[in-house]
Amino acid sequence: MEHNQRIIFTNDVPAAINEALDGIDYNRLFVLTDTNTAHFVLPRLAGNEHIAGADKITIKAGDMNKTIEAAGEVWRELVAGGGTRKSVLLNLGGGMVTDLGGFAASTFKRGIRFINVPTTLLSAVDAAVGGKTGVNYRGLKNEIGVFSEADAVIISTCFFSTLPLAEVKSGFAEMLKHGLLKGSDTYNRLLAYDFESRDYEHLLTLLRESVEVKAEIVRQDPQEHGLRRALNLGHTVGHAFESYAMSHKSPIPHGHAVAWGMVVELTLSNMLCGFPGTQVQEYAQFVLENYGAYHITCKDYDALLALMRHDKKSEHGELNFTLLAGVGDVRINISATDDDLRSAFDIYRDLLHI
Amino acid sequence: MEHNQRIIFTNDVPAAINEALDGIDYNRLFVLTDTNTAHFVLPRLAGNEHIAGADKITIKAGDMNKTIEAAGEVWRELVAGGGTRKSVLLNLGGGMVTDLGGFAASTFKRGIRFINVPTTLLSAVDAAVGGKTGVNYRGLKNEIGVFSEADAVIISTCFFSTLPLAEVKSGFAEMLKHGLLKGSDTYNRLLAYDFESRDYEHLLTLLRESVEVKAEIVRQDPQEHGLRRALNLGHTVGHAFESYAMSHKSPIPHGHAVAWGMVVELTLSNMLCGFPGTQVQEYAQFVLENYGAYHITCKDYDALLALMRHDKKSEHGELNFTLLAGVGDVRINISATDDDLRSAFDIYRDLLHI
Repeated sequence: MEHNQRIIFTNDVPAAINEALDGIDYNRLFVLTDTNTAHFVLPRLAGNEHIAGADKITIKAGDMNKTIEAAGEVWRELVAGGGTRKSVLLNLGGGMVTDLGGFAASTFKRGIRFINVPTTLLSAVDAAVGGKTGVNYRGLKNEIGVFSEADAVIISTCFFSTLPLAEVKSGFAEMLKHGLLKGSDTYNRLLAYDFESRDYEHLLTLLRESVEVKAEIVRQDPQEHGLRRALNLGHTVGHAFESYAMSHKSPIPHGHAVAWGMVVELTLSNMLCGFPGTQVQEYAQFVLENYGAYHITCKDYDALLALMRHDKKSEHGELNFTLLAGVGDVRINISATDDDLRSAFDIYRDLLHI
Repeated sequence: MEHNQRIIFTNDVPAAINEALDGIDYNRLFVLTDTNTAHFVLPRLAGNEHIAGADKITIKAGDMNKTIEAAGEVWRELVAGGGTRKSVLLNLGGGMVTDLGGFAASTFKRGIRFINVPTTLLSAVDAAVGGKTGVNYRGLKNEIGVFSEADAVIISTCFFSTLPLAEVKSGFAEMLKHGLLKGSDTYNRLLAYDFESRDYEHLLTLLRESVEVKAEIVRQDPQEHGLRRALNLGHTVGHAFESYAMSHKSPIPHGHAVAWGMVVELTLSNMLCGFPGTQVQEYAQFVLENYGAYHITCKDYDALLALMRHDKKSEHGELNFTLLAGVGDVRINISATDDDLRSAFDIYRDLLHI
């Protein structure tokens, strides 16, 4: 990652696309969408002359299609369209499109430039910044990929008005995480956000602040040797909830899993790092009101512990967490025992009235 | 490429493997070979305890097997063997194995460390250093790949004693190229080398000097924005010879193609950059004695020009070359007309008595 990534926050995406491309000496533009964004988003950008003149590549929507075979389709289209090392791939879609498109671009002729235009809040806040690209492989999420930053990321809330509210909330959970990592001012502004208002102008301001938290962490530790693990807050338990729900054929949105996972991990933070109990309660209340609860019983604990142990981020079998001593006061690599986790699950159920 | 790559020149490969691995905090070693090196080379390292305890992965030998599917086999074995981000892949083989293994490692879990142990002179001098990894795709050479440097490269001539002399000569052509780029002292030591002596101790000294020329160029321009193009000397014409021979079903070794290609490109250097004519003759004489000649007639010129135009390094259809104004005096991005090339081919045929 030799260059500084440009992040453009805007209400005028076509103008931002011009801004991103006018500074680049490129010979051919390819636009990658999935079957959803090809239908619902691409037409809204058809008036932009860069987009109008570009080769379009469409892949099937859905995380189950984030495969090496789909990356192969992108490579094939790049070859067929005469792509060279001076070509640019613009990824227009959610995290599945930006992850896969980023990987395909970064491996085509040993790397061409790419631009991410995330169309969901989750991808805007999470997947579009930070240089993590990849595809799933044999059932393992993001098993094949590279670290490679987009040349530019264009972030706008204008696409969100047509999204279901649940999808906006899913992305908002990652913003809450960034707020918890950053400090009280940022965090409190997020707790005050009213989803029912659908005030996407204000959301763009909050989103900018949130993305900048992540960008700063990634800048300091691009390849996740230490500090970047802060971004795992809520994700060890969250991924276990997500996998567990999936294994019972009733999948839950990623962001919701993280929101619930953070209830457990803030409880652990309270137990192991002195995170204030009143703030655990305040956070749990916000989650209960906006996300409801993921129902578990004590009979589920063993399975959840086993899932966490299989998580690729745990080494040598111990369970390591990113925890907080307070809002904005991060502790990485804190190990917790199985008993700690069982207690935290008990408290989680109390807090969310399960 | 954030770290400095270690290059270990040695007559004791097992000791060098210990040196490379003892400095690394790793949890599991995988050794990649092809069907040839599994049989002929791996047994010679069986006494090394790192190697003895490693998981072995074997892929089919040959450039036609340098595919994304073969990379998939490596990923599958890494998953099956419990590979994590702290695992290491040791690539033991020629350029096909180091290119493919480097790509598989660099994309597994967004990149694990890898060590290259090249077993041919060509891979030692060319493919093992410089961070170019990749696989062929739909008939296009190295179309899919990344720039990613090995954690360590172990270079030894001890494997070469069992190689056919033609294969040693093929690798030596890349050393000649590095000599021409570096300067008269290096270059003259190479012209004085006697293949019949099979003095591999002396060859290791020359090889070290040669690899360091390449490593220094790559250090200055890892992603081939400018200076690194110097390494293309001889390759524009050489690749055309190689493809042309392949299309007539009588393939020629890569290094031989480069040796002959440099006769044409040094002739162009003489015509366009004032490279001394006596040195063109001296070089052509060395090539004729050690490599013979690749036979072409004026009826082949059009096809060779067309092949060069299709070479991925030529943009907008013009033909650009790395040329020399003298030994060690490099000029990149020199464009030549079709008539220049036709004249150079004529002179090539004179020089090599065709």
